[in-house]
Amino acid sequence: MSDAAVNLDQKLSTFTEHWSPRIISQFNDCDVMVVKAEGEFKWHHHDETDDFFLVLKGTLRIELRDRDVTLRPGELFVVPKGVEHRPVAEGEVHLLLIEPKGVPNTGDAATAAQKVSI
Amino acid sequence: MSDAAVNLDQKLSTFTEHWSPRIISQFNDCDVMVVKAEGEFKWHHHDETDDFFLVLKGTLRIELRDRDVTLRPGELFVVPKGVEHRPVAEGEVHLLLIEPKGVPNTGDAATAAQKVSI
Repeated sequence: MSDAAVNLDQKLSTFTEHWSPRIISQFNDCDVMVVKAEGEFKWHHHDETDDFFLVLKGTLRIELRDRDVTLRPGELFVVPKGVEHRPVAEGEVHLLLIEPKGVPNTGDAATAAQKVSI
Repeated sequence: MSDAAVNLDQKLSTFTEHWSPRIISQFNDCDVMVVKAEGEFKWHHHDETDDFFLVLKGTLRIELRDRDVTLRPGELFVVPKGVEHRPVAEGEVHLLLIEPKGVPNTGDAATAAQKVSI
């Protein structure tokens, strides 16, 4: 838990990797994270949690099996628990994510990125 | 649960009241809300939950008993569960808030604003 204001752009300036979430704060049993995205992520779902996306920069297309949801800066979408989705970033996209602690970003611990606190 | 992108500025444009959160999405057992703030809120705390603030516009000072935390656009702070705090907005401030469903914004159901979904 940070004891000071957390500046999202400052946190994003500290790394360059894509699809590698950084934990910047915690809210109850959840990690609050920023991530840089570019290109296609994996199709996946989370059996036990919704998946929160807020776009800070760029355009993110969240592909669902029946439609796409396109998010621009200042737009958010929550993928319901169990719903298959694939995030696709055309160019670099910056996101704020919220997930329960320990949830693998791919929906599968074997392929998930390690979440690092910064 | 919205089934489309939620544009924060569009949601904020639909009301003018201060300190009256609007529910714009849901994430697991939490309400995702936007609120317009101006002036001093009440000193309060939440026994059962952290309190998530992300500033979208303006400057919010979160007074704690031992210090102040000042938030500008693109900055967030999570007030830990049980910690007394008083948000103070100098001029109008727009915020994204996340709280478990049913949590009174003042920490006390008797004085809380009704949270309306938009």
